[in-house]
Amino acid sequence: DVAGKWRYRAYERQDDALEGADFVIISILPGTFDEMQSDVHTPEAFGVYQSVGDTTGPGGLIRAVRTLPVFFELGSEIERLCPNAFVINYTNPMAMCMMALYRAYPGIRAHGCCHEVFGTQKFLAAILAERGHPDIPREDIKVSPIGINHFTWLNSARWGNMDLFPVYREYADAHHATGFGTAACDQTDLNASFFSSNQRVKMDLFRRFGLIAAAGDRHLAEFCPGNWYLRSPEEARAMGFNLTPVSYRKQQLAERLARAARLRSGEEKMELQQTGEEGYLQMRALLGLSEMVTNVNLPNGGQVQNLPLGLVVETNATFNMGGVRPVMAGELPPTIHALTVKVADNYITTVDACYRGDLAAIFPAFVNDPLMAPLSLSQSEALFAEMIKSTAHCLKHYDLSFLR
Amino acid sequence: DVAGKWRYRAYERQDDALEGADFVIISILPGTFDEMQSDVHTPEAFGVYQSVGDTTGPGGLIRAVRTLPVFFELGSEIERLCPNAFVINYTNPMAMCMMALYRAYPGIRAHGCCHEVFGTQKFLAAILAERGHPDIPREDIKVSPIGINHFTWLNSARWGNMDLFPVYREYADAHHATGFGTAACDQTDLNASFFSSNQRVKMDLFRRFGLIAAAGDRHLAEFCPGNWYLRSPEEARAMGFNLTPVSYRKQQLAERLARAARLRSGEEKMELQQTGEEGYLQMRALLGLSEMVTNVNLPNGGQVQNLPLGLVVETNATFNMGGVRPVMAGELPPTIHALTVKVADNYITTVDACYRGDLAAIFPAFVNDPLMAPLSLSQSEALFAEMIKSTAHCLKHYDLSFLR
Amino acid sequence: DVAGKWRYRAYERQDDALEGADFVIISILPGTFDEMQSDVHTPEAFGVYQSVGDTTGPGGLIRAVRTLPVFFELGSEIERLCPNAFVINYTNPMAMCMMALYRAYPGIRAHGCCHEVFGTQKFLAAILAERGHPDIPREDIKVSPIGINHFTWLNSARWGNMDLFPVYREYADAHHATGFGTAACDQTDLNASFFSSNQRVKMDLFRRFGLIAAAGDRHLAEFCPGNWYLRSPEEARAMGFNLTPVSYRKQQLAERLARAARLRSGEEKMELQQTGEEGYLQMRALLGLSEMVTNVNLPNGGQVQNLPLGLVVETNATFNMGGVRPVMAGELPPTIHALTVKVADNYITTVDACYRGDLAAIFPAFVNDPLMAPLSLSQSEALFAEMIKSTAHCLKHYDLSFLR
Amino acid sequence: DVAGKWRYRAYERQDDALEGADFVIISILPGTFDEMQSDVHTPEAFGVYQSVGDTTGPGGLIRAVRTLPVFFELGSEIERLCPNAFVINYTNPMAMCMMALYRAYPGIRAHGCCHEVFGTQKFLAAILAERGHPDIPREDIKVSPIGINHFTWLNSARWGNMDLFPVYREYADAHHATGFGTAACDQTDLNASFFSSNQRVKMDLFRRFGLIAAAGDRHLAEFCPGNWYLRSPEEARAMGFNLTPVSYRKQQLAERLARAARLRSGEEKMELQQTGEEGYLQMRALLGLSEMVTNVNLPNGGQVQNLPLGLVVETNATFNMGGVRPVMAGELPPTIHALTVKVADNYITTVDACYRGDLAAIFPAFVNDPLMAPLSLSQSEALFAEMIKSTAHCLKHYDLSFLR
Repeated sequence: DVAGKWRYRAYERQDDALEGADFVIISILPGTFDEMQSDVHTPEAFGVYQSVGDTTGPGGLIRAVRTLPVFFELGSEIERLCPNAFVINYTNPMAMCMMALYRAYPGIRAHGCCHEVFGTQKFLAAILAERGHPDIPREDIKVSPIGINHFTWLNSARWGNMDLFPVYREYADAHHATGFGTAACDQTDLNASFFSSNQRVKMDLFRRFGLIAAAGDRHLAEFCPGNWYLRSPEEARAMGFNLTPVSYRKQQLAERLARAARLRSGEEKMELQQTGEEGYLQMRALLGLSEMVTNVNLPNGGQVQNLPLGLVVETNATFNMGGVRPVMAGELPPTIHALTVKVADNYITTVDACYRGDLAAIFPAFVNDPLMAPLSLSQSEALFAEMIKSTAHCLKHYDLSFLR
Repeated sequence: DVAGKWRYRAYERQDDALEGADFVIISILPGTFDEMQSDVHTPEAFGVYQSVGDTTGPGGLIRAVRTLPVFFELGSEIERLCPNAFVINYTNPMAMCMMALYRAYPGIRAHGCCHEVFGTQKFLAAILAERGHPDIPREDIKVSPIGINHFTWLNSARWGNMDLFPVYREYADAHHATGFGTAACDQTDLNASFFSSNQRVKMDLFRRFGLIAAAGDRHLAEFCPGNWYLRSPEEARAMGFNLTPVSYRKQQLAERLARAARLRSGEEKMELQQTGEEGYLQMRALLGLSEMVTNVNLPNGGQVQNLPLGLVVETNATFNMGGVRPVMAGELPPTIHALTVKVADNYITTVDACYRGDLAAIFPAFVNDPLMAPLSLSQSEALFAEMIKSTAHCLKHYDLSFLR
Repeated sequence: DVAGKWRYRAYERQDDALEGADFVIISILPGTFDEMQSDVHTPEAFGVYQSVGDTTGPGGLIRAVRTLPVFFELGSEIERLCPNAFVINYTNPMAMCMMALYRAYPGIRAHGCCHEVFGTQKFLAAILAERGHPDIPREDIKVSPIGINHFTWLNSARWGNMDLFPVYREYADAHHATGFGTAACDQTDLNASFFSSNQRVKMDLFRRFGLIAAAGDRHLAEFCPGNWYLRSPEEARAMGFNLTPVSYRKQQLAERLARAARLRSGEEKMELQQTGEEGYLQMRALLGLSEMVTNVNLPNGGQVQNLPLGLVVETNATFNMGGVRPVMAGELPPTIHALTVKVADNYITTVDACYRGDLAAIFPAFVNDPLMAPLSLSQSEALFAEMIKSTAHCLKHYDLSFLR
Repeated sequence: DVAGKWRYRAYERQDDALEGADFVIISILPGTFDEMQSDVHTPEAFGVYQSVGDTTGPGGLIRAVRTLPVFFELGSEIERLCPNAFVINYTNPMAMCMMALYRAYPGIRAHGCCHEVFGTQKFLAAILAERGHPDIPREDIKVSPIGINHFTWLNSARWGNMDLFPVYREYADAHHATGFGTAACDQTDLNASFFSSNQRVKMDLFRRFGLIAAAGDRHLAEFCPGNWYLRSPEEARAMGFNLTPVSYRKQQLAERLARAARLRSGEEKMELQQTGEEGYLQMRALLGLSEMVTNVNLPNGGQVQNLPLGLVVETNATFNMGGVRPVMAGELPPTIHALTVKVADNYITTVDACYRGDLAAIFPAFVNDPLMAPLSLSQSEALFAEMIKSTAHCLKHYDLSFLR
């Protein structure tokens, strides 16, 4: 009924879109899937396997090299053209993109949204369904997330007045070896095969460290020592997930573009559906029409007490006309803290080096990535050079002379 | 209709009351109004005037000396008898009492409640009523408090999608010299006279520092240099508030005790009324029956970024079955920060000295109190000795030999 | 014998002097003593007395307004012309000038030198002389300073293997009422009268707070509530020091200029003397020719654990070819902390406001100065406007329209 | 000449030795080399190789389990019997032993000494000797260490006015593949073979991260991902060092005990030699007889800005009669920071768990150790149980029921 009240307009120039905007929503892909193909698959020749390759790992770092200059410029343009706008980012690598916006414009009012935590709420609801509580909406599973995007953890989970930690522990003890559902085995549904998991990584991590990991297994695995879950495609599959090939992303894109053409021509009719994303609810709250608490990515001001100030972290926050204010999430336990810092320090190095246009300064982060441990220093140098060369045509902001 | 479902039981021994409790609510007065009479009025001989004398100032510090040993013991007993209980404190000096509980039992799940912020929400509603928006419930005035109890400030205030800062600025510019209402002039209603104000201190502070002070004027004045609002009873009255004499508190107490006797005997019938306090709503949320955000006093873990960790501060917090988690309130501006630290440092000194039973170590805080500036060192020594002597019979936890 | 090996050259343009410099030494007076006359004496009409007026108080703040733009520009020019130079500042207000250099050029290698601590070492040597240990060089009195410039404290003082705290306590108990020497009484030696004291403020502060204050009494008094030591010129004199009139500074300047003319004409012969300053020793160490530990002013990176990061603080530091590294000085006790924060917060406000050219934003600091407590808000507004007007011709970097 | 002025006395009971002591020097081995044999060699069955096994890795953690209860008790006894003593620890695992002392007695005046940095000073002197500067004493190589014990780094190194970083870079670029000297190849001198290295790990780390690692290669390797330098005994030897077998330590011990018998019987004559340790110089300084700056292990109070407060870190400190005060060492670069935090977080977990006697709580640290990456969770569980059982007779302070 309300569909007719919206007006859409696409701008050819970014500054026309930004000028005087009240809200800016960013969801982009600098470069193409050709560059992503190098990010994800080039390291395989050195025995380094990545399940996603857009967040951390050698692929995530090179993706950041390509993506961050766009975000530095976006931050500056927002300061110039709409300094009071609320900015919502959906682009990966989430944490580094957000850090780039704040680096360029420290006064920006930006936060980042990601649906990975929602997936864990749904998993908890599914466990409750097995125990005789069917059809619980994921919003009713209340959680307190803590961590960095795609390596987020829950230190509280509850449904009504039921504490879900004992429930989850019981489930993980019973199912950690077999997993939940049939993902990664079903080669007939490629989408399920390449974008889901049977939650075994999540349950293994729970049994190691005692908190509920709150991102998909494919993301979680990339933050751990490569020997744990990503030693080979076969060992990943044995843990219940597949490595997502970029060729499949290309095929999906072709299908989406074809559908867009059909929609534009009227051959196919647009149907309105909820996406499950919360951005529109957050916008309502920021306009003073409601108040809400949900999880978002924001620079750490102490909401995670033992992560560095300024690092972009994921926790709950209150949304209202006064803006977005994080809720104190507490501390990561030392073990998860160490795994998180390993990647977070690489983020700090990478954002700083990209800001200064100093590609060579990223190399120490590259060799320190948890997935890079099997390589010698000279192998790492060779891989770094090859990956940079594959995406060099997108790197006009940098001095690439060191490659020669 | 629900009145009959409650069961009340008074215990003669504290440990019987605490054993296995799910909730502990603390609202006590160690000592009597006789000791408070010394706290408030003894300093007047040296030209030091206090409007309340229960929070800071020489009176607040000596009240803490008398009160904190009770809270150290309460903390230890709670650890022993009901370590997982939720503890709600209403006793003043709020911040120091809370710090004493956490000092005795660092794992305690305690928070402190105070209704002063509610009064400022009502003042904001009254201003809106003057502008044609009558009868707004105070809960609908959404605020973000920051500071320490009784010297709390709002860095955001809104009604629906209306920002109340421009509204308040306009009001303060027009009314700062004349005040709101007629408080402190009306000598026929002693209760109004001694417990209210016409908000002139609050508006003066807004014009100095730009934030909305969120406690009553009588409390606010005691945190500022004495020369500002408490130079004499006459100057206080000229600013729209009276110093509350302890004699009036005694008279009130006699009336309350008489009424209690009438209620007990059945001479007067009990009528159920909402008190305006929020404790029962918080308890509902902690039991998993709802979720709420409201302001409370908790140890600082970073929710106020530029106050010391561990100091008990007042900000918003989320309440749910996972417990109480503060919402990040930001930073105090440097000016308010300096006034706050002046008193907060005395709290830290006092709690530490009382914990060690070292009364002499409180003296540097006593001479450093903002209201004590007019006294020479030897005058301060004389006043300290006199005030301690007045309450010495309540100080069995301390070595008082240094007084001789 | 070494005099002939130095070459001096005065430059007409600052950038000629800075270009490629290895060391930059800054000792300047933006404006003249006419402006300082307003800084120091204009507030007296409102009952606000200042003994120096160059560090804090209304005079120190307005001096900063005039001085800081020069330091912002110096910082930028050093970044452009000699980014690796070691920079030594002797200009007041020391802490704010240093903060301005680091604000303009965060990578600057600058530290600030002040001889006030040396004076306290000499006072301690004098006390030891009275006890039969004559002629101890002040360098042999080893101390650990902590605080901000001109409000610095010692938390350790020793001579050989003698702890000087018990010695000082005994001395202060015996002499706090009468003082050391005859300063401020001797009106025949104006220099002694206007630039020294008989240490009574220092001893009074020791008896309040337990640490040895390590700046001259005239400076210390300005950081305390005005009621303590600066209620009137008479009360200051009763405490053993005089307010230094700017007229006397002008007279001294005339004498110095006359002597400079005599030296230039050869009428008077230059005699080489040690100044007692340590800059040349520090330069030797930074060149790798020695290693030393002494007290300097540097941005706080944790060397004072309970003062804000970035505030310029005074502590010991090691000097060697690797640069200047502060020695951890510990924490200020809460009482001294509160007095320090009161002024430090005004520094933070002032440096920030001057950097943004926003004079109105300094006003909250101005009304919050400890010496300003007796004034009402409207009196403070009047004094602020008058003082700014007196120095307005030096304030070309600011928008002064708010004064009209 | 001075040998005769010392008196030695061995006590049978620890409290007789501690009572009233001015200095306490701790150098002990809880358990025997039999338990160390399990620490070092049991993990080899799972493919986990350790070069030393006394600091980190599965062996270092289990050694801590055995050792820390002794240090908790030592701390308590020192508080009871000699609370003002200066305490110097030489026992490994250094950082955790120091943390245990401070946990038991937060007011203890303890620091830890280690000679590993001296070895790197000697290596730098040897490089200078190759460049024509022979016989430089290691004390003349001035350095600024930063990090945790056995994973310490230099962020400044100089000789007179020569910066040694360019010198080291040139050397490492030329020699990283071949190493310095012939260590680990010479099987005729077992002592050289098992306790030295040819510095290739150190140079490899320099080329990765840009700082000079300042401990022996055998220690450095254990802090890195096992794939880097400890994949197998052969790969370690290829990097220029051997794994030290505990059998060789046992043989050495037998020889030392035999020599002690010969010394006691007079068969062999005692010859006085400098050990190269600095403890006696530190004691002189703490007695007020000198002042010195050298590197020690102390709880972090900010001297390493990006490591947790309270973690025991290694930096320079000033020694004088006022005590030991760390010199600010700056920040670890993010990459080295991540490697350090990985182990430091395990230290924090382990000290806390041992203090509470909760062995099961150490397991998350055990599985998170960098050398443990190749093991699955169930393999880790098996290894943990086996190692605990091997040393169970030394673990009377713990509840071991979880093993059954």
